Amino acid sequence: MPKRILISNDDGINSEGIHKLHETLKKLGEVYVVAPDRDQSAVSHSLSLYRPLRLDKITEYVYSVDGTPTDCVNLAINGILRDKKPDLLVSGINKGENIGDDITYSGTVSAAMEGTLLGIPSIALSLVGRGDFNFDYALHHSELIAKYVLENKLPEDTLLNVNIPNLPGEQIKGIVITRQGKRLYDEPIVEKVDPRGKKYYWIGGDELGFLNIDSSDIVAVKQGYVSVTPIGLDLTKYDHIDKLRADLLRE
Amino acid sequence: MPKRILISNDDGINSEGIHKLHETLKKLGEVYVVAPDRDQSAVSHSLSLYRPLRLDKITEYVYSVDGTPTDCVNLAINGILRDKKPDLLVSGINKGENIGDDITYSGTVSAAMEGTLLGIPSIALSLVGRGDFNFDYALHHSELIAKYVLENKLPEDTLLNVNIPNLPGEQIKGIVITRQGKRLYDEPIVEKVDPRGKKYYWIGGDELGFLNIDSSDIVAVKQGYVSVTPIGLDLTKYDHIDKLRADLLRE
Repeated sequence: MPKRILISNDDGINSEGIHKLHETLKKLGEVYVVAPDRDQSAVSHSLSLYRPLRLDKITEYVYSVDGTPTDCVNLAINGILRDKKPDLLVSGINKGENIGDDITYSGTVSAAMEGTLLGIPSIALSLVGRGDFNFDYALHHSELIAKYVLENKLPEDTLLNVNIPNLPGEQIKGIVITRQGKRLYDEPIVEKVDPRGKKYYWIGGDELGFLNIDSSDIVAVKQGYVSVTPIGLDLTKYDHIDKLRADLLRE
Repeated sequence: MPKRILISNDDGINSEGIHKLHETLKKLGEVYVVAPDRDQSAVSHSLSLYRPLRLDKITEYVYSVDGTPTDCVNLAINGILRDKKPDLLVSGINKGENIGDDITYSGTVSAAMEGTLLGIPSIALSLVGRGDFNFDYALHHSELIAKYVLENKLPEDTLLNVNIPNLPGEQIKGIVITRQGKRLYDEPIVEKVDPRGKKYYWIGGDELGFLNIDSSDIVAVKQGYVSVTPIGLDLTKYDHIDKLRADLLRE
């Protein structure tokens, strides 16, 4: 039986990354695309519970939704594909990296989180760079990793967060399995004044440093590798439970 | 020197939960409130990077922001309090639980995540119930846990996710340290038709079951305990790295 693949993203249904990914993954099975009707970057794992959603069927296999990436995946798995459960969810290819702690802000990763929570093996794909993105570079590795997950699945509550350098294939050194890196956060708020003399504020820039953690996603990508990080959705900090029990329950 | 406490939430600056919390925590130090100007439930860890934010100074210590809980915390720590780093961030008290996998959707928990990422010991507080909420019940335990964190801090990248049953104090059995529970996800999409004959969709209801995991947040709260879960922000699934290395790099 052919495999069924669901694609979503946070850059929106008209982004280049999702089109190219769609074309490529057709080689692996029957592909559905359910994606936001516009750019939803940095919406994180938002779910629209307080307003209804509109769904636009573009072809038999392609739908747009006036919601977040999480909405799209939920609507696809619990609605459109309710009787046709996908074997794989792929989110991306995102324009720009999703690394370090920043993945908790990421719409791309959130779509993969939602797929995982709903029981579908899921991958988040991001192309790391600024300015000129060439998605063609990333397609080979995207296909390879999608194929691996289709064949091997993933453990419960685990997704793969993949970041691919924006480099021609021959310059990519290979794949490495990494851990989530850590960003240095110290961005001052930027204050501006509008034409009517009223202040407004921008949350700080994005050209910030990362801690140079060995085998982290950021270090791997900087060195020219494709970074694959297994991400778990049980956020419990188990190694702090005993101390809390001893401290907090004693008081 | 008096301690400095920052409060935020996702129910908005005018919610009862944040007012009562504010009054209570004044006993522990100098309290700042920086919260969304309206309800921002289920916005998750969204950060407004593509539009500027407006800030409304209500008193010397109270500000509202036209953004998400994450925006509020970022604006507070990197802006308003940039030279007055808080010793503690408390998010809440939220109307409704934040337990299980659902914490990845939660604005309340996200505010605490942002505080943690910016280096401030952080607590998310939620009152578990439906319909009639009595925040007075939760204040005693909120103060106790805030006091503990002020005195003992928390490990790096770790926050406390606290869920308090909506019960009178004498009916609460005490505090337990828990792990993140697991929700059962199988909510069909609800289809409706608007007055103009066009379909629209609601993401499923919220009266769902949870797996009955021993020592999980949901079980603790159901039994009448205050649940305190230590939550870590390194999402790497370390125990899957070796298998991925063996499998994926071999191909």
